[in-house]
Order: sequence, then structure tokens, then C-alpha cells
Amino acid sequence: MNDTAKLSYPGSRRVYIPGRLHPDVQVPMREVVLSDTLLPDGTTHPNDPVRIYDCSGPWGDGAYEGSAEQGLPALRAAWIRSRGDVREVGAEKGPCLQAAGENPVTQRHYALNGLITPEMEFVAIRENLGREQAFKAVYDRYPNEKSRPDEAGEILDALTVMPRPSELEAAEGFGPSSMVARDRLDHQHAPERRRGCRMPAYFTPEFVRDEIAAGRALIPANINHPECEPMAIGRNFLVKINANIGNSALGSSIEEEVEKLRWAIHWGADTVMDLSTGKNIHATREWILRNSPVPIGTVPIYQALEKVGGKVADLGWDIFRDTLLEQARQGVDYVTVHAALLLRFVNHTARRMTGIVSRGGSIMAQWSMIHEQENFLYTHWDEICSILAAYDIAVSIGDGLRPGSVADANDFAQLAELEIQGDLTMRAWRAGVQVMNEGPGHVPMHLIAENMNKQLEWCMEAPFYTLGPLVTDIAPGYDHITGAIGGAIIGQRGCAMLCYVTRKEHLGLPDREDVREGVVTYKLAAHAADLAKGHPSAQWRDNALAQARFEFRWEDQFNLSLDPQKARSYHDLTLPHANAKKA
Amino acid sequence: MNDTAKLSYPGSRRVYIPGRLHPDVQVPMREVVLSDTLLPDGTTHPNDPVRIYDCSGPWGDGAYEGSAEQGLPALRAAWIRSRGDVREVGAEKGPCLQAAGENPVTQRHYALNGLITPEMEFVAIRENLGREQAFKAVYDRYPNEKSRPDEAGEILDALTVMPRPSELEAAEGFGPSSMVARDRLDHQHAPERRRGCRMPAYFTPEFVRDEIAAGRALIPANINHPECEPMAIGRNFLVKINANIGNSALGSSIEEEVEKLRWAIHWGADTVMDLSTGKNIHATREWILRNSPVPIGTVPIYQALEKVGGKVADLGWDIFRDTLLEQARQGVDYVTVHAALLLRFVNHTARRMTGIVSRGGSIMAQWSMIHEQENFLYTHWDEICSILAAYDIAVSIGDGLRPGSVADANDFAQLAELEIQGDLTMRAWRAGVQVMNEGPGHVPMHLIAENMNKQLEWCMEAPFYTLGPLVTDIAPGYDHITGAIGGAIIGQRGCAMLCYVTRKEHLGLPDREDVREGVVTYKLAAHAADLAKGHPSAQWRDNALAQARFEFRWEDQFNLSLDPQKARSYHDLTLPHANAKKA
Repeated sequence: MNDTAKLSYPGSRRVYIPGRLHPDVQVPMREVVLSDTLLPDGTTHPNDPVRIYDCSGPWGDGAYEGSAEQGLPALRAAWIRSRGDVREVGAEKGPCLQAAGENPVTQRHYALNGLITPEMEFVAIRENLGREQAFKAVYDRYPNEKSRPDEAGEILDALTVMPRPSELEAAEGFGPSSMVARDRLDHQHAPERRRGCRMPAYFTPEFVRDEIAAGRALIPANINHPECEPMAIGRNFLVKINANIGNSALGSSIEEEVEKLRWAIHWGADTVMDLSTGKNIHATREWILRNSPVPIGTVPIYQALEKVGGKVADLGWDIFRDTLLEQARQGVDYVTVHAALLLRFVNHTARRMTGIVSRGGSIMAQWSMIHEQENFLYTHWDEICSILAAYDIAVSIGDGLRPGSVADANDFAQLAELEIQGDLTMRAWRAGVQVMNEGPGHVPMHLIAENMNKQLEWCMEAPFYTLGPLVTDIAPGYDHITGAIGGAIIGQRGCAMLCYVTRKEHLGLPDREDVREGVVTYKLAAHAADLAKGHPSAQWRDNALAQARFEFRWEDQFNLSLDPQKARSYHDLTLPHANAKKA
Repeated sequence: MNDTAKLSYPGSRRVYIPGRLHPDVQVPMREVVLSDTLLPDGTTHPNDPVRIYDCSGPWGDGAYEGSAEQGLPALRAAWIRSRGDVREVGAEKGPCLQAAGENPVTQRHYALNGLITPEMEFVAIRENLGREQAFKAVYDRYPNEKSRPDEAGEILDALTVMPRPSELEAAEGFGPSSMVARDRLDHQHAPERRRGCRMPAYFTPEFVRDEIAAGRALIPANINHPECEPMAIGRNFLVKINANIGNSALGSSIEEEVEKLRWAIHWGADTVMDLSTGKNIHATREWILRNSPVPIGTVPIYQALEKVGGKVADLGWDIFRDTLLEQARQGVDYVTVHAALLLRFVNHTARRMTGIVSRGGSIMAQWSMIHEQENFLYTHWDEICSILAAYDIAVSIGDGLRPGSVADANDFAQLAELEIQGDLTMRAWRAGVQVMNEGPGHVPMHLIAENMNKQLEWCMEAPFYTLGPLVTDIAPGYDHITGAIGGAIIGQRGCAMLCYVTRKEHLGLPDREDVREGVVTYKLAAHAADLAKGHPSAQWRDNALAQARFEFRWEDQFNLSLDPQKARSYHDLTLPHANAKKA
């Protein structure tokens, strides 16, 4: 674990969980070691360590000694080549891999053909967190299934059977007899039954495969980004969060960009979008990709626009295709493509409060208006998909007409685009491409459900990926919070990934503290949604922290929290003595 | 406007709206003056000022020159005496008012008797915000109703008719013909239809009276707190927020306590609970009451416990009654009484993760266990109510068994107490007392609805007043956010008031910046709920701010926000030039 990690996460150690189907799969987790409980009779009782999902990759492993110059180890290189469907080509900017034949080389294609890839097993283990360990403990202790005591059976039941609906909801009235023990770490509330979610009690590689085959989940993992640790975006998995990075016009060095990436994943960003602009866009992205253990997303139209000197009128299919290929060969894992914004929708933004606020949307709307032609991303969709399929880039279909204010939420322009996103989703799936759909934006709370429900229906349950949504416009300076409220609500309803906003949203560029505050805020919103969806690994951490709090194990409370350093510093301000932290 | 106000809210001025039924009613509002819109042809278009709900009382009026030593003007003194039902008595600590006869002197009693008090008209005007002004503008311009043009009729319709269900929801499919103009400041989304809310399109004094008579709302306003500006807590009004203040054991001066009050209401706290402890508890409260334009709440059992030297066993009815009378005569507007925690519920907390976490609940549970007797607040409920009725103190029935962790949410102990809160509500109403019910606490998102629904049913729609709820336990240091997520959700469902938590919750005592961050965070959560409930005055401010943002009127965007100073400073950090703020 590096210095930042040590400082931020005291009491933690890195562990790796091996795969069973694919023994070279090694899933990293952070394990928080807890102190003993002091019992009333003066004896102590040990507390098991708690395993936490860890996005930081080798950078979070104390034993790792690499540098940004070297880049990360190519974790997936052998997996990718062993499938025998890729070949090395000498691309303009160095050799890279692409599909050797006509077939897609995507996780979707493999899933549809019944394969369980190492990537899928990696994801299954990752989503189970400590449950894997708890299982193993029972099996190690009672290898003979027949002589297993009842107690062991109860533990296995708790691990594999979804919690039954709460005793209170089930009963006619309610009464003391319906009381269940809440003081067990494996207690978990029964989840809500919502259309969007069908959470399993235990994640198996088969489950991951089936979700990907159904299009309900994706694993963004370009064959040219072997450094990437597989993760799933889908409503029946943990809610994920994305952080944006990017150099500003005023310039920031490449090293700074890599450090921004490390900082975002250190706090828990599951994916990172690189929105860099300017001259060094290719080199910056190269550094980011070679040092990123999380999937990297981009918006290729931004770079295409750079190539034509910022003149929207000069954009066109050829430049876009070349840019997409360039990024494909570099290893970008997912791309936002604003292909669903049709020319005929543009005039329906005329009576909006805030017009078109998406940068990509604004570019494509301008281009269509200038040339009086249909959006070239729409007319070239099938060609885009065949490029994506040859590198396993996932597509995130953009919502160029997302509302930029509460007033514009769920209007005709927005929903018309969503309907086209659905058509494009189906066509991308047919080409073997992994797909998600981008969503708003600014939406008051009571209009969030409509967004989620229409997306589920029109886009056939493809994962939804929203920005916020921000539930009011009146709190600039606090928009990480207005976005976290909307994010938690739409996450609960099945939104698969939340794009963070920082407190500088609408105002300026975020600094390191803004990124930290933003990522942690979205982590807590995503976790709140996981609890409500009934993700089987979610409540354990709450339980462990609550128990530590109740027993005045302050250090454990801090160490189990999303931001131990901040929790500790707030405590130390008013109660700075060490003895105020114990018992 | 004092210096703090000038600094925090530039571009604002204080205005007063007079009553019609009661001409001496003068409702304060803050009016944000906007700059002109620059039109494409180079001409300009003026923008009307926006009126904002203002909790700061005389302290927010630049013309006010009083000091904390003097105390605020006794705004309500004449109203209270003119009802002819109170008499002055020489209480131990100075003269005060109490009911002259047997009848309650409560707003509930007046409402049930069909009276519209000045307090009720004050509330109606306050909740209408700028709508009052918009009305007046139409009537002033077209005094003759018959010669009124269509345009005027449309404005009046927009002001008085609830928005129709969104065109998109109503239509079979959706199409361009269903597009409505979103670029008007009076555009408001149709509200959700929920059991908890029946929002009127325009607030009349009659509506306020009827809500109070039905028990769905209250106006906490002790006859001995004439400085209090009336405000309503009820699900068909703006969602309110409460901030707690209180000296710590380590001590803070009385002046500091008054300043804490002013700071909290400056940012928008609708009520303040004084949780002070220690020797100067009476004097501290006196200073706070005499300087508070917002209702002050307390938890009298805390002071009662001080009187018996902190020994729970020594508590009893007599000491509690004396304490309650002392606070009644001083002018406390509402009191939390943990009367619904029955002895038989206590052992149902044994298998909880975090036991009993409410301080008042813990005191009463201990007392009951020690004496093996029923909670004396329960057994003396009718006597408590007759004291409350004689001063118009509202009662906030405490939830002593609220969950202290996600694990303990909605368990038997909690819900059993809620059911008794319902019984006590009915009995308090019969005594003429205004009532609300306190609620949790720590609740995962999907269990929030059950809290709200059972409270509506069991407590017969009496206003609900919750602490958070906090939707996860894993984010100490960010619990203002976990609480704001739960608060927005339960506010949307009809919770009438949210008790804020600061980011220091569970960790330490909040400082000024924590209070500011906490109040603003809860303001935005409450406002998000107001938008979703369809409060008719809510969306205007979002629209005005979004329009300013779209037109690059930066100063207007800052000045319309909840925390203009912070928004401006975040902007200035990266784009510090004045010309970056205009156009």
C-alpha cells in the first residue's frame, strides 16, 4: 500500500482472492482489521476483519513498486490472447490488438456463446466481497457435508438465501413474536421488490455471464487495456460511480493527470472518464490508460473537434471514425456517442429554460443544423458498432438533449432522444457490442421514476448511467449533494452507474479536495442504493461500523468509514485525547 | 440588514407584505433584485425581483437596530392579548401570561372554533411568497374584472390552478404537440399524487385554519414568546428544517448561544431546538427566547435531570411538571416529550445492533427499569396536555426507541412506540394541544416509506418530524449528506419538518461552518421535497436561477442560490475576473 493509502486507510491491508475456474484470477480487496470487543466480564472477543471493494488497483497494494513511467502490469494480457480471436496489428502509433476475424471479441459475444471468461469470474468474486471468505470458512471447517452441524447450515443459509420480506411487512399486524435479531453482522433487511432489480443472494460466474448475455450488465474492458481490473456495470450488481478528469485549457502536466486518476480511484471511483482537450490529448490518454486499473471512458467527438480546429462545421464521419479507431487501439474501454440526437428533435428545445447543455449534444445539434443533415453518428451507427466490436469497446449512448434545469426535465426532446437510444441499443447488441445508456441531468425527485421506467422499457434493461440527477437548481456550491440525492434515488430504482458531480459544478474546475468530497459523496449515495436494492454484500459494513460505534471502538468506526481520515479529524477537533477514542 | 446578511446575501433587500384581514400583520421576505437580460438585438429586458422565504427575523432587516440585550420587539403581544383569553400571573421568575379560563389558548382551539388568527394569515402570506405580489400586480393593473384581457386571466390561472398532470404522462404515447413552454418563470411540473400531500394552488388564511383544525399542521407559538414570527409545520406547506444549538459541557457564553441562534436562522433554520445543559440553562434559554424570531423547542427532561444532579432514579413527575411550567412561562414553543416509550417495549431492544440511542429515550427507559414502573410521562399525559394547552406549547412526541443504525430500522420496539404516539396524539388533540410526532433516525431508503405510511395512519396525519433519516452508517464525516438523502425522500412523502444533522454527527460538536453546511444542506433537501410535492411557490426560484445561468448572469445566479457567498467564492477560485461573471 502506498503512502496515500496508508494515510487514508489505517488498519487496512490488501488481500487477493483467487478464482476457482481461472486460478490466475486474483481479485484485490481491502481488508479492515478490527480490534477486540471488551465484554462486561472483562474478557475480550475478537472481531473478524471486514472486506471492502477496492478500485485502487496495484496503487493500493503496499507491495507494488511500479511507477507511472512503467505503467501497470498487463493483468489481462494472457486471458485476451488465450481466446485465440485477436491478432496484433501495427497501428500508426504502435502495435495493438484487434479482432482476427469477423466475430466480435466482446464479453457480450463470449457470454452469448456460453463462455465464462476470467473477467466474469473476477467480477463475481469482487461483488461477493467477504461472503466468499465466509463460505470458505464453513467449508474448510466442515469438509464433510453430512456431518455439518445446524449452525453451519444457518450460516450458509444466511449467505445464499435472499432475506425474506421483513417480518413486519409479512404479518397481519405486528407483535413481539415477529422480532428478529438485528445484532448479527449478517443481518440484512429484505430488499424492495422493484422491476429494475433481481439481486441474487450470491454472485456466481454463471450469473455474471447471464446478465451480460441479457444485456443487463457490461464489463468495459478493451482488449488493448490489459491493465484493467474487470468490473461490472449493471443493475443487479453494486451501483458504480464514475469520476471525470481532464486537463483544462489552461494546461496541466501529464503527471498531474495520472495523479488525478490515482486520486479518484483511491477514494473509490469505479471508472474514470478522460475529458482532456488540447494538444497533448493522445499522450495524456496514453499515460492514463497505461496506469489505470479501472475502465477509462472518453467522448471521442471532443478529440475529433480538436482535429478540425474547433470548427463544428468541419466535422464529419471520416474524422470521427479515425478518432474512434485511434482511441480503440489505445485501449479506451467505453465511449460516449451522441448518436440518438436527431435533427428533428432540435427545434423542440426552443421553448426550454436552458436549451441544450450537453457539450456533445450541442456539437451534434450544431452540425446537423449547419448542414441540414441527419446526425452523422446516427447515420453511421452500424459502422461505429463494427469498430467497437473489434476491440470490445462498450458504447455509452449519449443523451445530448438532457435537461439542464429542473424546468426542462422529462420534456419531449429528452424523451424522444431516449426512444432512439433504445433503437440504437438493439442494433449495437446485434453487432455484439456491450451497451449502456446515458441519462440526466437535472430532474426533480418526483420525475426520476419516469426516467428510469422509460429507460428500462425503451432500452430493454440495458444499464442506465446518469449524471446526478440534480434534484434542484438552487444550490450551486452544493451540487454534489443535490446530485447525490437524485443518484441515490435512481440507483435504488436500478440505475447502474452514477457520474459524480463536484461542489464546483456550474462554477469552476474541481481541485483535489473537491474530487475527494465528490467521490465519497457519490460512494455513499451508491451504497445507500445498494442497501435498498438488497445487494447481499452491502449491509455487512454498516453493521460492522454500527457495532463498533455502539461499543465505542472509535478506531474501528473510523477505519470502516468511507473517509477514515476525515472522520478521525472531525473527532479529534473536539475530543482530541486518545482515551476518548477507546471505550 | 445587518453586516452578516449584507455579506451573505448581496443584491437582496428586506420587504414586508401586509395582511388583509389583519392589517398589522407584516410578513418579512427577502427580495433578490436581478439584473437585466441582454437580448440578441442589443436591447435589454428587465427581470422581476424574486421573493425568498426568510427566517432571520429583525436580524435580517438592515433598518433594525436592536441588540441582544434589548431582545426583539414583541410582534405578537397585541394579538395575544386582544383574544381576551389570557391573564398575567406573577410567576416565580417574573410575570408571564397563561390561559385565563378553562379553554385552551392554542391555535388549534381557535381553528376548531373557526377563527382566523393573525398568526394564520401571517403563515398564508409567508407560504405564498411572490405569488401574493403577482396577484396584486394583476389586480392593480386590471381593477375591473370584466375588462380584464385574456393574458391576465392566464396569469391568474397559473397562480391559482394546480398544474395539470404532465402532458407526457397524460398522453397515450407522446408527441411534439404535447410540448409545453418551459421557459416561463411560472412553469411548474405537476406534482406527484401521494396520499400524504394535498397542496393547494394558493394559500389562504382559511386553508391554514383548516389544516390546523384537522391537526395536519401546527403553528408553534407560545403566548409567552411574542417575538416569534408565525410559521407552519405541516405536510401541505413548505418542508421546514430544525437546527439544534446548545452549550457544551465545556461551556460557552450566553452571547455565544444567541449568536449560534442568529447564525442558524441566518442560513434558513425554521425552528431551533435549545439543548443546553449545565448551570445557566434557564438564563441561556431566556436570552435565546427573547432574541428568537423562530419557534424554540426544548427537551424538558434534560433540564429536569440537571435538577436531580443527573441521577435518573431521582426523576419523577413533580420535577418534570415544575420544569415544564418553568419553560412554559418562559415562552418555549414546542417540547419533546418521550411519553410513548412504554416499559414493556424496553426488552425488545435487547437484540438490537445499537440499543437505545435517543438521550431522552434512554433516560426514560432507565427510569422505568429502575423503578419497575410505567414511564411517568405516559401516566401523566393528560396533566402534561393541560399545561401545554394553557400556554399554547406544541408537543413533539418523542421517539425514544428510534433506530441508531440501519440494522435496527423499523423493528418492533420502534413501531410499537409509534403506535402509542398515535394514541397520545389523539389525547393531546382532545385537550386542544397542537401535536407533531418525532421519527427516525437511521433508516435505509427502502424502509422510509413504511415509516411515513404508518405514521400517517397511526398518528392520523399529525405532522411528522424526523432526524434525517440517515440512509447508511458508513459515512461518518458526511452524515449531513446521508441525512439529507433520507430527509428529501421522507419530505417528498409528506414529512413536515427535518431535524438537521451536521457533518460532525457521531463525531463531535459542530462549529459555525458545520452549522452553515448543515443548514444549507437540509434547506436544499427540503426544497427538493417541495418541488416534488408541488408546493406552488417552489419552482419559481429554480426557474429564475436556471434562466440566470443560461444567460450568463453570474451575479444573479449567485444571489439566487442558497449560499451566494460560497457559490461566488468557488467561481472566483478558477475564473476570478469580473468579465467572467458577466455575459
